Amino acid sequence: MRDNFPRFGERVMRRLDELAADTDEPGKITRLFLSPSHKRAMARVRGFMEAAALSVEEDDIGNVVGRLESTVPHAPVFILGSHIDSVRDAGRYDGGFGVLSAIEVADEIRRRGDKLPFSLEIVAFGDEEGVRFPATLSGSRALAGNFDFESLGAQDENGVSLAEALRGFGCNIEGIGKIARDPRRACGYLESHIEQGPVLEAENLALGVVTAIAGMCRFNVTVEGEAGHAGTVPMGRRKDPLAGSAAMISAVEDEARRTPDVVATVGVIEASPGAINVIPAKVRFSVDLRAPVDEVRERAKAKVEARLSSIAKERGLSIGFTPLDEAKATPCDPGMMRELSDALARQGHRVFTLPSGAGHDAMAMARLCPVAMLFLRCKAGISHNPAEAITVEDAQAAIEVMLDFILHFRPSAHTEATEERSLCQGGRPAVVAQISSIDTTPLSR
Amino acid sequence: MRDNFPRFGERVMRRLDELAADTDEPGKITRLFLSPSHKRAMARVRGFMEAAALSVEEDDIGNVVGRLESTVPHAPVFILGSHIDSVRDAGRYDGGFGVLSAIEVADEIRRRGDKLPFSLEIVAFGDEEGVRFPATLSGSRALAGNFDFESLGAQDENGVSLAEALRGFGCNIEGIGKIARDPRRACGYLESHIEQGPVLEAENLALGVVTAIAGMCRFNVTVEGEAGHAGTVPMGRRKDPLAGSAAMISAVEDEARRTPDVVATVGVIEASPGAINVIPAKVRFSVDLRAPVDEVRERAKAKVEARLSSIAKERGLSIGFTPLDEAKATPCDPGMMRELSDALARQGHRVFTLPSGAGHDAMAMARLCPVAMLFLRCKAGISHNPAEAITVEDAQAAIEVMLDFILHFRPSAHTEATEERSLCQGGRPAVVAQISSIDTTPLSR
Repeated sequence: MRDNFPRFGERVMRRLDELAADTDEPGKITRLFLSPSHKRAMARVRGFMEAAALSVEEDDIGNVVGRLESTVPHAPVFILGSHIDSVRDAGRYDGGFGVLSAIEVADEIRRRGDKLPFSLEIVAFGDEEGVRFPATLSGSRALAGNFDFESLGAQDENGVSLAEALRGFGCNIEGIGKIARDPRRACGYLESHIEQGPVLEAENLALGVVTAIAGMCRFNVTVEGEAGHAGTVPMGRRKDPLAGSAAMISAVEDEARRTPDVVATVGVIEASPGAINVIPAKVRFSVDLRAPVDEVRERAKAKVEARLSSIAKERGLSIGFTPLDEAKATPCDPGMMRELSDALARQGHRVFTLPSGAGHDAMAMARLCPVAMLFLRCKAGISHNPAEAITVEDAQAAIEVMLDFILHFRPSAHTEATEERSLCQGGRPAVVAQISSIDTTPLSR
Repeated sequence: MRDNFPRFGERVMRRLDELAADTDEPGKITRLFLSPSHKRAMARVRGFMEAAALSVEEDDIGNVVGRLESTVPHAPVFILGSHIDSVRDAGRYDGGFGVLSAIEVADEIRRRGDKLPFSLEIVAFGDEEGVRFPATLSGSRALAGNFDFESLGAQDENGVSLAEALRGFGCNIEGIGKIARDPRRACGYLESHIEQGPVLEAENLALGVVTAIAGMCRFNVTVEGEAGHAGTVPMGRRKDPLAGSAAMISAVEDEARRTPDVVATVGVIEASPGAINVIPAKVRFSVDLRAPVDEVRERAKAKVEARLSSIAKERGLSIGFTPLDEAKATPCDPGMMRELSDALARQGHRVFTLPSGAGHDAMAMARLCPVAMLFLRCKAGISHNPAEAITVEDAQAAIEVMLDFILHFRPSAHTEATEERSLCQGGRPAVVAQISSIDTTPLSR
């Protein structure tokens, strides 16, 4: 099959370069949600979608949606996508690759005249990074019927609320509720994304199948001791919260190291008063702890808190934990993972699975339908940085696998999972029986 | 002897309260070098000195000097003193106690009509804390003939140079060189000071004899690793400079703990970029390491640097050391320490010696003549803080011991040390022979 595919890689890389021109900071890529550059990027993506003969609409939360209608009556919808917003001074592949690679897939299906048993929707979400507002995944949550309407009051650093920004962007707030897709008709979501980590590169692999998007908890640790003169308090009489915090940070690292798939990071630390000749009175540091399985994360968090409390006690320090954020893990759909693995194998790749430590639109979409993610090797694991890089060969390989996956995808296989999900959400009727009655054999090949 | 002494403690405490009113920040004690409050404090101290019938002069570096002349012709000079400048939002005992207790000593000697074989000078130095200008000990260095004339160009935070501030204060820059005392005539310096540490309180002692003012070295440690996404880089693939720094800070603490009399402090730490979800790229932290013996300090510093470098190597981090400051230890004069210990014993105290981890005017004075320091217990070891506290009983005890010491002091015993010191300084003739010919038996009691 490989030899039949056109050179997707080159076009997608060229288009990613073009998209990089849509920025609010010349010389850098900074494309915040609902900014002028976001508007320009939407128009550019619309152009790419229209060139693929998709029918395009921009919705009331700033998503661009291109649709390739199935010829089958009452066909369900399979959604491909990612986001086109960016962090400040970003790279050009995070998010953008998932959108533009999906357009390549749709374009190739159209070009080949393949008839799918489902319609395809390609979505360019507008708010995954959560940089501008203290809210995130607005676009994918709206699609999943889980938009947080309270977030409309959230303000950016200039005091502009999300609601005001949406209106200024031409969006109709009243329309957001209507964006929600019908879970009875959504048969799956696939997102391709750069790994943003070093694992695939270390494995010498272009691609990997994501097992789960890790759950995460964040908390601040405040350690208080006794300030003192750096020269006059003997070591044995100190209650030094920074020496204590050092032991604690080592314990955080140790706990994560000894637990497979758990990562823990201390990214922020502050000692006060913060003078070279003063034993600090107080230290605050952050902990970000993630695991692809919720129980593992919760157990690791409890162990970290117990170890830190015990260090504080030994040293006569007081300690406090301030929870900041907590998100459950999003397991990818086992059936879709299997089919994505099959597509990798058919395309000649070693099948490799890995968790995603970073968040993605797939987290929100998992509320709507079964999700899968394909990870793409990125150079040195670097992301959120202008040095972010992928190769044209890997881009080509990713699009080939996505296409292969879509051509083989059978919605009926996922009915049960969808039904369970609908039931879990409560209040939404789980009438998905008709999906299973559709002939899902790929119509071509 | 104890019962014969007047109630020094009450008067000195009352005067310390009065001195506390001289501040540039109402509600706090902030008395920076050459500030309006420093001028007012000088006038107040002059008043106390004049009440003790001392002849008083203010010199060209902002010191107030009260003199009690010996009746012995060509008598040497013994100097007592400390400083009257303060840190911002200071306590009322640091510095001030040493000056006002010395005035009590001189006043009592005058009152008793004791005839000493040396003249007494009580000095209120103006610049020990080094808060206003990036220079310190200006007053005591001028007396010791070691004033740093280059520091005249140093500027305060408003861009005012030390030279301009001195002129504005009414000082004559040309006169600074003439402040230097003749090392052939300076037979000793005694400074009483609050401990600024918790040792005496823990020992349940009012007073202690200082063995040495610790030498100190300060350096910054810069640790560089690889920034990364907190979720996507597995623990085994991290080069986290903050986790590395935590291990290093523990090593700094451990090295100091295992070496008697060494203290080491990390007071400042900065992780960049400093985001909760980013493995830091770089961490900078400070190390302040002190020991009363230079070789011990140098050995400890070398061991700390070696251990930190080895941690960096194990973790694939790069490490750099930036020296900031280094000061040799100032050993107190063994003969004067012995005599101060004898005075303590005579006054019924357990003799206890301890190093000073903080710097004092005695460091500068040691260049001129033998020095001794008497430490006074302070509450909870707190200093440089409004909570700084001493008791009236301890103040009384300190003044009694100082008085006893002065009444028993025999300049001849220190000739040799003075001679060595003069020779060490190079360029100053070491003609101290005549000092030893003076009858040094206390004339009264």
